[in-house]
Amino acid sequence: MSTESNSTARAKLIELAAEFYDQFAGGEIPKMTLPTRTKSNIEYDEALDVWVYGDRTSTRSANSVSGAQKLLKSVYTIDFLAKQLEQDRSSTLRELYYLSESWDAEEAQFGDQDESNQLVEDLEIVSEVTREDFHMRPEESGATLMGPLHLREQTRRGERDIHCQEDVGEGGYQIPNNPDTIEFLDNDADFILCVETGGMRDRLVENGFDEEYNALIVHLKGQPARATRRITRRLHDELDLPVTVFTDGDPWSYRIYGSVAYGSIKSAHLSEYLATPAAEFIGIQPEDIVEYDLPTDPLSDSDVNALESELEDPRFQTDYWEEQIELQLEIGKKAEQQALASRGLDFVTDTYLPARLDDMGVI
Amino acid sequence: MSTESNSTARAKLIELAAEFYDQFAGGEIPKMTLPTRTKSNIEYDEALDVWVYGDRTSTRSANSVSGAQKLLKSVYTIDFLAKQLEQDRSSTLRELYYLSESWDAEEAQFGDQDESNQLVEDLEIVSEVTREDFHMRPEESGATLMGPLHLREQTRRGERDIHCQEDVGEGGYQIPNNPDTIEFLDNDADFILCVETGGMRDRLVENGFDEEYNALIVHLKGQPARATRRITRRLHDELDLPVTVFTDGDPWSYRIYGSVAYGSIKSAHLSEYLATPAAEFIGIQPEDIVEYDLPTDPLSDSDVNALESELEDPRFQTDYWEEQIELQLEIGKKAEQQALASRGLDFVTDTYLPARLDDMGVI
Repeated sequence: MSTESNSTARAKLIELAAEFYDQFAGGEIPKMTLPTRTKSNIEYDEALDVWVYGDRTSTRSANSVSGAQKLLKSVYTIDFLAKQLEQDRSSTLRELYYLSESWDAEEAQFGDQDESNQLVEDLEIVSEVTREDFHMRPEESGATLMGPLHLREQTRRGERDIHCQEDVGEGGYQIPNNPDTIEFLDNDADFILCVETGGMRDRLVENGFDEEYNALIVHLKGQPARATRRITRRLHDELDLPVTVFTDGDPWSYRIYGSVAYGSIKSAHLSEYLATPAAEFIGIQPEDIVEYDLPTDPLSDSDVNALESELEDPRFQTDYWEEQIELQLEIGKKAEQQALASRGLDFVTDTYLPARLDDMGVI
Repeated sequence: MSTESNSTARAKLIELAAEFYDQFAGGEIPKMTLPTRTKSNIEYDEALDVWVYGDRTSTRSANSVSGAQKLLKSVYTIDFLAKQLEQDRSSTLRELYYLSESWDAEEAQFGDQDESNQLVEDLEIVSEVTREDFHMRPEESGATLMGPLHLREQTRRGERDIHCQEDVGEGGYQIPNNPDTIEFLDNDADFILCVETGGMRDRLVENGFDEEYNALIVHLKGQPARATRRITRRLHDELDLPVTVFTDGDPWSYRIYGSVAYGSIKSAHLSEYLATPAAEFIGIQPEDIVEYDLPTDPLSDSDVNALESELEDPRFQTDYWEEQIELQLEIGKKAEQQALASRGLDFVTDTYLPARLDDMGVI
């Protein structure tokens, strides 16, 4: 999957509709074939180092009323997206759902938003064009970026050249919904530090960590949006920078790391576009909880279950993760990244991160 | 309550600690008196047009172990905040909680974060200094601003002059945690439009509504953060601009409007600082659901309860709100702001908002 111009994206969508036409013309019952999107059909691609769909497929055929309706909805959606691209407009997934109420064929209208969201994902997979290249926006925007990077964003109102330290306030540069509108001009960055919480992001910025260590600080805001994962991947690929992921020390945060590094089941068709397999986990590690005697909370039953399921997860089947997860199950504790404040507000930037970055060979 | 310099804020905190000292010295049992912070002690101030605390007070006295511990925690927290202000540093509420683990008196350490959050609010009330002026940050930052406004943000790295259309990407200007670091330089704005959802904010920006109507678009991001309410209040006061609030058409969204306009029980001590009583509701109104035949969802039981409790709420006891809420209970339906897309993607900017703004006398 690669990023496409409006006209290429449009052509690929129309190709899909043309296939239905040809099937009709050839006397066939129209159908669309998709990879089966379940956990059992996800495979770890050793070469690419990311999750991809396996070989199992499902077919949507017009040989049933519900199948025919799905294809009808696909055709109406393709028509809408093709017009949107022609006019260089964009819309949200929720707008698409509501817009369908204005379509003349009532059978083509969506029953709920899950249905329209799912269809857009299906079209992504079949057409090999990303949602962003369809000009479909998510409801909420990406997070922010702060660091020694000069970029150019192509907006509807023209180009904006922005230095992500000198031209922004303390809040940083707001990553747009489609970060492929950004061109990286020049930078003094040595590495990328993705940070889970807003409180820690603000701590690093207040302490000038981005300036002292030439770090690009990307705020993940919990489970990161597609835009955040995409810009991280592009920063890694195009600027050849190491990526580190700094989260809380609990199983849910390891999943945040996993989604940055390896992608997710829901977006396995986009792993090459969104995941950064070279991303390394910088903590909080279970061994840090022991070593630094951090304030902790006990693991809940659901934490224990999540850790046990991570032990079964091929993404976490490395010596490092097995050791850390087993240690965490043994001590029965978890810690937040801001728990480092129990050693003082500067401990994270003066001691913790420099030591970890040095261990990892990043600095 | 007004914004304070570091040294004034610090002096007010130390005054609190000095009172305990004087009480001790005078042979009294130290105590602290606060307004009772419950719903029954909230009054609508007709003159200020906002919620404020009533006359009932609670006293924390060192005449019990738990009372003495509360005062001990207050003194340690005052000490921490005074040092923080002296050094011109800042920290998050969560960091304060963790930091307390490093305090030498174990009895002064917080048991959970609710306790430290609550204490910081108590200190706000007693000292009449805002949390922002203590340099305590929230976990998550404010939202974004887009429109014809040129501002200067005082950051730790120096001044940043930013035009909120020309110097920002499509994501807009990120409002900092403490918007009192901002100075408004000049503007071509005619009014402020606060918008609940990210999808609608993006629609207005894509359609160039801020340019065509000289609107400052403030993204509320659901229930707005303090920073978002504060900057709205300041834009209204200092630039003399009308404020309109654009949300979904359901009882929870009317509460979002209420928190912008009248403040909340939790922050009644800050109403003068955060609330904008002149803010007007621009929709979605129940009558719009009928007039434009918008796609709707049925009201749930909790929606109905929330509407009924709004009818009892002095903030909503106006002819306008009674009419709208009664109509909504009658039709039994609610609609999202993006439901306007059922009339086309441009309906909101070409028809809906201009008609409403005209009715309201804003344009």
